Amino acid sequence: MQDLHKEADNARNYLSKIAKFAEAKFDEHLPPESDVPCNLHKAMRYSVFAGGKRLRPGLAYAAFELFGGKGDSIWKATSALEFLHTFSLIHDDLPCIDNDDYRRGKFTAHKQFGEATAVMSGDALCVIAFELMAKTGNAKAVEILAQKLGTYGMIGGEMTDIDCEGKKVSLETVDYIHYHKTAALIEASLVIGALLAGAPESDIKKIEQYGKSIGLAFQIVDDILDIVSTTEELGKDAGSDVASGKATYPALIGLENSRKKALELYEDSLKPLAEIKGDTSILKSIAAFIILRVK
Amino acid sequence: MQDLHKEADNARNYLSKIAKFAEAKFDEHLPPESDVPCNLHKAMRYSVFAGGKRLRPGLAYAAFELFGGKGDSIWKATSALEFLHTFSLIHDDLPCIDNDDYRRGKFTAHKQFGEATAVMSGDALCVIAFELMAKTGNAKAVEILAQKLGTYGMIGGEMTDIDCEGKKVSLETVDYIHYHKTAALIEASLVIGALLAGAPESDIKKIEQYGKSIGLAFQIVDDILDIVSTTEELGKDAGSDVASGKATYPALIGLENSRKKALELYEDSLKPLAEIKGDTSILKSIAAFIILRVK
Repeated sequence: MQDLHKEADNARNYLSKIAKFAEAKFDEHLPPESDVPCNLHKAMRYSVFAGGKRLRPGLAYAAFELFGGKGDSIWKATSALEFLHTFSLIHDDLPCIDNDDYRRGKFTAHKQFGEATAVMSGDALCVIAFELMAKTGNAKAVEILAQKLGTYGMIGGEMTDIDCEGKKVSLETVDYIHYHKTAALIEASLVIGALLAGAPESDIKKIEQYGKSIGLAFQIVDDILDIVSTTEELGKDAGSDVASGKATYPALIGLENSRKKALELYEDSLKPLAEIKGDTSILKSIAAFIILRVK
Repeated sequence: MQDLHKEADNARNYLSKIAKFAEAKFDEHLPPESDVPCNLHKAMRYSVFAGGKRLRPGLAYAAFELFGGKGDSIWKATSALEFLHTFSLIHDDLPCIDNDDYRRGKFTAHKQFGEATAVMSGDALCVIAFELMAKTGNAKAVEILAQKLGTYGMIGGEMTDIDCEGKKVSLETVDYIHYHKTAALIEASLVIGALLAGAPESDIKKIEQYGKSIGLAFQIVDDILDIVSTTEELGKDAGSDVASGKATYPALIGLENSRKKALELYEDSLKPLAEIKGDTSILKSIAAFIILRVK
């Protein structure tokens, strides 16, 4: 475990470094608040700059570096990925969905700007993300992004998550939800970073497999944190999963077994990495960071 | 006026013909209801197949034909355009925005499937539209689509429309709203059809200009119809603009002047068409159809 903590620290430093660059690009890629419709642009910026680890940009950049990517196109992709993540959070927090008041220690978009503006700011972030990804000139990257995001990806997972609230569900269904709701966009980040770097198809499959394992691990750890943390520590409503009867690993197999499962997934994630030529050490560190994630 | 009616009939026949092809493609491009999440796929299909003139697919196809386009890519674009139009209607109808119960004579998505599914089905239609557009392999088409749709396009117009409800606004603001909320996606349809056909940049500018005029005309006629029609005739809540204090031409300059303005815009739309080499007669007919639009 000592080694894992060292790995996690390593990842934390890397992610902070990439986050700094990525955030400067978010600012460049988002419309200024002074442009009409000002309040909508303000709402988009409020949610994007509410904080966060910028994990998806970090993963995309790590994959891009691993496969020797050159040039600026990756920063369009990192903005697109973070904007899509933000879009999904804004819509998930809506009163008609999760009805959450806090996110990252601040009011959620609809609490701060009203529901109409929240819906529209999510829509606008989704659209601008596709614009940025299209500006890489890589139509295949746009296509993959949409697939990972759509009803066979993230949105499919979110919808099933909503539909299953308060119902007794199998571990298989929980896996379906997590793989789609959470892992899909993490996979997309890695695949798109690799694709923009010109990685071979076989390596893209491997890095996608790594993403699938850390994506599920990420969600399990998130659900553990929802139980063991306070609202203050989380920056969002703690205990909300239990309160709304969400389908989670801790709810189905308990906290201790959930921790074990996360550790297993960490081990699983390293296997495809070992088959890739090149320095995958930072991705290994990020996997450790994910399972040891604390505020 | 006799001639205009003949033109409009001509356009109606053309649009019906294209709609038949386009709708067969919608069916092919939308996930089947039997796929998980079934209810979400059902909701997406419900809204897409609720009817409509399929004006945007018709315009895209007409532009594609005008510039000698060949191949199947146009049908991915026509689906993308109609799915985006549907996405915008679903979100606009939401209780937190226009709060409309009826659309095309049927319950709106949120009345039929609940708000969470309505939000998600809109999101999913937006995402699948970008997937389809990316599948044309034309990254530029994706970029233009996103620009016409984003905060400097359709979404910007919608947001300003919401923000101006119940307020006294200038004709300049009404123009801003209409050009963005309505004309932008109509322009996108024409530009993308032309782009996929390989039209020269100068012709693309002209067809965009035509789209701007008919787009504004379309919205003015829509707002006239909202006043002079019954809910049954419209298939949606009649008189809702006046009730909610919407910024419209009839509200600002009266019905008669609004009709005159629509006719002027029809004349304006013909000018850029006259400068394009090739047979623009069907686009001329569609302009007539738009200003003479009846149920």
